[in-house]
Amino acid sequence: MKDLQQRIEDHIITLSQFTATPGKGTTRLTYSREDLQAREYIKGKMIEYGLQVKEDGLGNIFGKLEGTVKDAPSVLIGSHFDSVPNGGAYDGQAGVVAGLEVAALFAKNNIKPKYPLEVIAMIEEEGSRFGGGLMGSRGIVGLLSEEEFKNLTDKDGISTVEAMAEIGLDSSLPKKRNPKTIKAFLEMHIEQGPILEEKGIPIGMVEAIVGLVQLEVTVEGQAGHAGTTPMDRRSDALVAAAKMVAEFPELTIGEGEGTVITTGRLNVFPNGANVIPDKVVYTVDIRSRKEEHVLSLVGKVKDLVDSYNDNGIKTSVEQQLFVQPKAMNTEIISLFKESCSQLDLPYCSINSGAGHDAMVFSDYTDVGMLFIPSKAGLSHCPEEWSDSKDIANAVHILYEAAKKLTGTE
Amino acid sequence: MKDLQQRIEDHIITLSQFTATPGKGTTRLTYSREDLQAREYIKGKMIEYGLQVKEDGLGNIFGKLEGTVKDAPSVLIGSHFDSVPNGGAYDGQAGVVAGLEVAALFAKNNIKPKYPLEVIAMIEEEGSRFGGGLMGSRGIVGLLSEEEFKNLTDKDGISTVEAMAEIGLDSSLPKKRNPKTIKAFLEMHIEQGPILEEKGIPIGMVEAIVGLVQLEVTVEGQAGHAGTTPMDRRSDALVAAAKMVAEFPELTIGEGEGTVITTGRLNVFPNGANVIPDKVVYTVDIRSRKEEHVLSLVGKVKDLVDSYNDNGIKTSVEQQLFVQPKAMNTEIISLFKESCSQLDLPYCSINSGAGHDAMVFSDYTDVGMLFIPSKAGLSHCPEEWSDSKDIANAVHILYEAAKKLTGTE
Repeated sequence: MKDLQQRIEDHIITLSQFTATPGKGTTRLTYSREDLQAREYIKGKMIEYGLQVKEDGLGNIFGKLEGTVKDAPSVLIGSHFDSVPNGGAYDGQAGVVAGLEVAALFAKNNIKPKYPLEVIAMIEEEGSRFGGGLMGSRGIVGLLSEEEFKNLTDKDGISTVEAMAEIGLDSSLPKKRNPKTIKAFLEMHIEQGPILEEKGIPIGMVEAIVGLVQLEVTVEGQAGHAGTTPMDRRSDALVAAAKMVAEFPELTIGEGEGTVITTGRLNVFPNGANVIPDKVVYTVDIRSRKEEHVLSLVGKVKDLVDSYNDNGIKTSVEQQLFVQPKAMNTEIISLFKESCSQLDLPYCSINSGAGHDAMVFSDYTDVGMLFIPSKAGLSHCPEEWSDSKDIANAVHILYEAAKKLTGTE
Repeated sequence: MKDLQQRIEDHIITLSQFTATPGKGTTRLTYSREDLQAREYIKGKMIEYGLQVKEDGLGNIFGKLEGTVKDAPSVLIGSHFDSVPNGGAYDGQAGVVAGLEVAALFAKNNIKPKYPLEVIAMIEEEGSRFGGGLMGSRGIVGLLSEEEFKNLTDKDGISTVEAMAEIGLDSSLPKKRNPKTIKAFLEMHIEQGPILEEKGIPIGMVEAIVGLVQLEVTVEGQAGHAGTTPMDRRSDALVAAAKMVAEFPELTIGEGEGTVITTGRLNVFPNGANVIPDKVVYTVDIRSRKEEHVLSLVGKVKDLVDSYNDNGIKTSVEQQLFVQPKAMNTEIISLFKESCSQLDLPYCSINSGAGHDAMVFSDYTDVGMLFIPSKAGLSHCPEEWSDSKDIANAVHILYEAAKKLTGTE
């Protein structure tokens, strides 16, 4: 076990160095220089572990161990390798590392599966560069059209296609994958919350993933000089936006435990100290375990934003992402639980408050997901940390489940 | 008169083309490529109008018509030529153009003044690149030390000295100017408010300039994942900042007519849609005609910001600029009024709600300031517009006053 844990730590340390903000957490935006560095590392490890490497037209990476049955669907194991700005070294990449180490165990034990095993490392789950998020998995299952993909741009106006070309990726390769080529998708992820640590339990069996809506709100007013426009004649887009953002947390009251609302990104225009802002654009991220609560909260936000349409203020709301709450596959959960019993590992059931690529796959294939504890429940920050011992435990569980799903036992 | 008005329009049109945001107003940040373009144009016109051109260690431009009396102090006429982001084509540059055209009238009428006439075009009045504002005039009068100047950086971390070097300016040249070399400072500026237009009066005699404070507020919280951090365990820096910004307008109540407060710049960190913000930095611009109101409002803002220091939120306030209300020179006002009578131009007294370079000079020399109407009172936006006929009127008033102040009559 020491060997595995050491390898996991090495992977994590190496990947964490591929950041645009050294000393200030992991900032690895999709198709950036750091993406390319991590990509080369992951592909190198895939080859080292005996996998055949392929990239698709989105830049997702697949490392395949062929099965003995011709044209059989694959068992996919992995996660994403992009990060939020100034995020941590575990969100996403720990799941990719776990996938790699499952393949390493297949190689070490010389296992010849009937169904292929594929380690998968996906792009743009966080949506930090092109918005929306879950882009790698949505592209694979066909929820992102070629047209939509091409029209996405980052904050500097650089398109997906241009950005891919910049790091030598070929956007003309196929994106969507026939669902018949996928037998199952397994993902290990950090919990990003405090529950497992508080309970002192090393493994969370994910039962369901919360529903999620992302809105983009635009508030337009009238620019003017900060010194010469009387207070009663202003249409200040920032004051209006601030009032809305300040009220959002209260809207969650009565929407069920675990319902959350967040404005994470907010940009002011023209953003000069002595100019009354004429435009503010901000995001609203809404999540709940029940779809009815998600929809109710979206309605409340829209009503609140709408109510500011007056006195020269114009608002609009665009829905950028909607994902229903998703249940994980019960048979895979049973497989995981069996492995835990064999390995004598305590576990508990848990729901995921965050969206994951697993949620996108769940409509197309059987999906299983494991959580490991997050120190102090922190995530999306440089302090994000998980124990490599917990990742190693998860690798063993995934390995046992993958052997069964690929038909080696 | 037609000739003068046409020349004014030509200057304005040409200068407005030196913008980083074509089609979206004038964006001319200090020491930018557009600064250099405008600088070359202004220097060219100075030479064309028979002036000797000099730049100081701040990049301020001086075009001098020598006086017949040896070592006599100069009458300065001009304004600034930087702009806010996406501002208009008149704020600052119209005053530089007026100065140029006063010199053109001196040349055309072959006037040999006793005291030198200097047309002046100043940098960074808006503070849009290096913060604080009024930098050109503060440097000239010695309110900005060499040390302070060198330590200023823009949002990308580029220092003033580096930025000057990039457009070929020499920051080692003298900055401060002996006040004994200045006899008076005259500035024409657009009103940036609705009063003159509403009254239908083409000239405003500025009696005083409002007091001004700029604060920078930093709000720090704790980052975390937007989906997994329960609402009651958050320290969301943006929600806290939004509550403050939303409350600021009400703080002006009881602080006297014309008292204004503005948050024009606000930046969120890390600014990702699914990350709870851990830091927000924003400006507060406070202005009032009476110093007691400025100070009272600063106190209220500090108390309000302070009251949010709780539940994992940490706040701090830094005062970046404080300028007392300033009265203009009564003798120059009399000169202006005489000229108006001679030229049969209606005028009215007015106070300036905006800070101006004239305000900085007022402690060191005799200062006079004229306003011309702003269409719809708009400024700091692409729609900013003033009539070239009004600028031409102001040029005639300034010309008459300059002749008297330089001792030609």
